[in-house]
Amino acid sequence: MKYCIGADVGGTSIKLGAVDEQGELLLKWETKTRKGDNGKLFLKDIADGIMDAIGSHEKLKHGELLGVGLDVPGPVLPNGYVELCPNLGVRKLYPAKELSKLIGGIPVRIANDANAAALGEMWQGAGKGHGSICMVTLGTGVGGGIVSEGHIFYGSHGAGGELGHMRVDDTETENCNCGGRGCLEQYASATGIARVARRMLDKSDEDSGLRAIKDINAKDVCDLAKAGDELALKALSYSMDRLSYALSLVAITTDPEVFVVGGGVSKAGDILIELIKKGLANYQSLIGADRYEVALAELGNDAGIYGAAKLMLPEK
Amino acid sequence: MKYCIGADVGGTSIKLGAVDEQGELLLKWETKTRKGDNGKLFLKDIADGIMDAIGSHEKLKHGELLGVGLDVPGPVLPNGYVELCPNLGVRKLYPAKELSKLIGGIPVRIANDANAAALGEMWQGAGKGHGSICMVTLGTGVGGGIVSEGHIFYGSHGAGGELGHMRVDDTETENCNCGGRGCLEQYASATGIARVARRMLDKSDEDSGLRAIKDINAKDVCDLAKAGDELALKALSYSMDRLSYALSLVAITTDPEVFVVGGGVSKAGDILIELIKKGLANYQSLIGADRYEVALAELGNDAGIYGAAKLMLPEK
Repeated sequence: MKYCIGADVGGTSIKLGAVDEQGELLLKWETKTRKGDNGKLFLKDIADGIMDAIGSHEKLKHGELLGVGLDVPGPVLPNGYVELCPNLGVRKLYPAKELSKLIGGIPVRIANDANAAALGEMWQGAGKGHGSICMVTLGTGVGGGIVSEGHIFYGSHGAGGELGHMRVDDTETENCNCGGRGCLEQYASATGIARVARRMLDKSDEDSGLRAIKDINAKDVCDLAKAGDELALKALSYSMDRLSYALSLVAITTDPEVFVVGGGVSKAGDILIELIKKGLANYQSLIGADRYEVALAELGNDAGIYGAAKLMLPEK
Repeated sequence: MKYCIGADVGGTSIKLGAVDEQGELLLKWETKTRKGDNGKLFLKDIADGIMDAIGSHEKLKHGELLGVGLDVPGPVLPNGYVELCPNLGVRKLYPAKELSKLIGGIPVRIANDANAAALGEMWQGAGKGHGSICMVTLGTGVGGGIVSEGHIFYGSHGAGGELGHMRVDDTETENCNCGGRGCLEQYASATGIARVARRMLDKSDEDSGLRAIKDINAKDVCDLAKAGDELALKALSYSMDRLSYALSLVAITTDPEVFVVGGGVSKAGDILIELIKKGLANYQSLIGADRYEVALAELGNDAGIYGAAKLMLPEK
């Protein structure tokens, strides 16, 4: 049996797993992310964990490890270089090369976490069976990953698939964290959805269940929108309209088969998909919006493990 | 000597050339595009031309033909399928497979013309030395091609790099040819630049050299803008601003190293590059606009030949 190991490296914890060629998750474990010493500590932990797993798990011991895939929360150049990854305390490093040295030269590849998640969902999740995917992750921020015909978009500055910073509103007056204005993240992230709702509340006298809530969050907005609260629905619709606009632009530049929506906000479920499909139909006419599939992510927190592991699997 | 043949198939004529591995154009010829019989006529002409060239040209006779690349003015799926190409009178065809049969099984690949031009410019033109490129062609319409890390963006519906139909103005009231509204093509094509200028003239009393011209075209606008005509400059600036906005979105989704501007309008020269750089700086902050190169295309009408030929050359 041939298998790969995927390591999804986050700012708090590292999720690892062994996945066979067919995409079966054979083993999964997790470890805290020890920062410091420019990545040396957590890379050592990953290496130790991998060696332990190979030595102690019967299936892995007798299988053939094809390689290890890493993903990290920051820009990664196509050659594996990480200029800066503040969440991991890493700077000017080739993490894959470093890890490979620690595990006796076993090949290691690396990608950005959102890109790895997209690859994972395409391999074993909501994009299964498709050859190209655009995944958007609606969490505290908005992340994105694009895989086309098996090719991950690193981007020449590591900004491939950075959908969260597409400018989708030219009238915005507040700045995004990136220094820009009108970025998708300001509307469609969890923070963004709550912000849009608060703005609408302030500007109207309309009655809404949201008025009774002290610190409105995205879940409140989604729950009330689903329960029929008009203002909440208007706010969520606007957020998803801006997302649809961004996806309609991706549709005619990288032209994926399927759009997959993940991240914490995606727990709101089908209402998001309906709103996005409506928006796409409004914005995309060249190809026809109905030719793009839109789906909720399926792998949850494991998407990164699958995607990282898949980095080491040859195309079929 | 190893070489490839590229055939750039347009609605009026087919440009063909033999290009060696180093990118030297050894031989070039042209033939009329004979439509009819679902592509059989012009494919036969291409096949005959190739056989003639191989048989009669000394260098080619003793060289090794690695294969033939085709490009066509319409959507091409990654598997080479052309659903519909009105300009060539072709429907539901695998043109590369058909051509290969006519030339004794020599391998043939196919791409969309704008994508092939992008590949050509990256190989031997303004994008030389770069690993990824976004090329935009400003002609009657706006075409686009994206090549990333050696990978051409066909797109799953053949719409990869269709920058001309990115929506860049939500307030537009007129429809684009595609059925959409506010498409880049409505502002930045030759037709679009003239249209923007005419609209500005109608809405203002400002003096302008444009008022003396009966049928304003893009060249008039560019020439007068360069000569210091304020209204012409304002019009051209708006057109290039919308183009910059579209490119800024490409910058953080496919993240190329260089943007190359080609097509008839690009003859206006450096003024376009200056305006685009200014616009990019306004819209792109995540990576920093100054990290993207912007350049005029260099290969002119030969870009397609180079790009089509390159389809058959293995990556280095």
